[in-house]
Amino acid sequence: MNKIITIGREFGSGGRELGKRIAEKLNIAYYDKEIITEIAKNTDLAIDYVKQVVEQKPIVYYPISIGGTLNRDYGFICDNASQVYAEQCKVLKELASKSSCVIVGRCADYILRDMNPYRIFVYSDMESKIKRCKLKGEVEENLSDRKLKKMIKSVDNDRSRYYSFYTSQAWGDKLNYDLCINTSNKEIKDVVEEVLSLFK
Amino acid sequence: MNKIITIGREFGSGGRELGKRIAEKLNIAYYDKEIITEIAKNTDLAIDYVKQVVEQKPIVYYPISIGGTLNRDYGFICDNASQVYAEQCKVLKELASKSSCVIVGRCADYILRDMNPYRIFVYSDMESKIKRCKLKGEVEENLSDRKLKKMIKSVDNDRSRYYSFYTSQAWGDKLNYDLCINTSNKEIKDVVEEVLSLFK
Repeated sequence: MNKIITIGREFGSGGRELGKRIAEKLNIAYYDKEIITEIAKNTDLAIDYVKQVVEQKPIVYYPISIGGTLNRDYGFICDNASQVYAEQCKVLKELASKSSCVIVGRCADYILRDMNPYRIFVYSDMESKIKRCKLKGEVEENLSDRKLKKMIKSVDNDRSRYYSFYTSQAWGDKLNYDLCINTSNKEIKDVVEEVLSLFK
Repeated sequence: MNKIITIGREFGSGGRELGKRIAEKLNIAYYDKEIITEIAKNTDLAIDYVKQVVEQKPIVYYPISIGGTLNRDYGFICDNASQVYAEQCKVLKELASKSSCVIVGRCADYILRDMNPYRIFVYSDMESKIKRCKLKGEVEENLSDRKLKKMIKSVDNDRSRYYSFYTSQAWGDKLNYDLCINTSNKEIKDVVEEVLSLFK
């Protein structure tokens, strides 16, 4: 049976790098942005639009007039969000059936629950997330700490709302994961070695 | 420098077994009940009394009359609790200075924070904790699920209150640990192998 490892991660916690390192160590596939590209291809929606949709909980608002303009917009937004989510489920299941892999984000822990994935959550304190964003991000390196903190909180809030909307579970609640890894004040390469040295 | 691994654990999560296995794998010392014995020896208090004190937050109540009986009792209870905690700090620091080790419970993650311990928290869903208690406990195997659940909740509440009283941190909050391990529906020996297979 394929080994499926899913990674939920706070923004700036180094979850993507950790996922890549695990995939390299195990010599298995790694999926992250590829999933968005695949959804876009299959739905004929623009990649940037799909990116926007998959990180945000659908905005549910109620039309003040039946049959008016608002009603049509509402239908359009909800249709796209559910179309993208349905496609996301399809893409993830196809990828996970094809071979062992590491999948970052995308509610994969929940969507693939019947395939018994190993579910990791990667997190960090705010100070370390700010520091990591400054080191890694092209846009982020020019932002003040205050602005970065606001941005990190906003991205994580979106992820949390999106996750709980589709899974009815709390994002980051340790009971939903097999392993939670704290990357505060640590280099990701050291995190891997540290855990390894504990259990070998 | 000594490698210090501290393990916080929910009652019935298998944290002690995990700690023992890690200590065996690394061939280092393992401390759990030995700490209580050591405290009792150094304070001239009975082992059973120390056991009771170290799992409960000191009861803080205020005497209704100054100089009355209540006042004397209050002083006695608080003196013992703080004497035991002070001795606990001393014993833990001595053990950690002596050699590399795994220490279960006793706020060791906090007390030894200057020695940069690797802090693990072990947890599980209620169903698995009940099942594990029934398999392992001498008293527990004869209790109904309802009574066991009540007991597990009560022990964990005591641990949580004790921990937050002495550390001003939230017990089980993932930010206070380097690694949080979910043992729901798993044998502890498999948990170790599973983590190992991820990172080797």
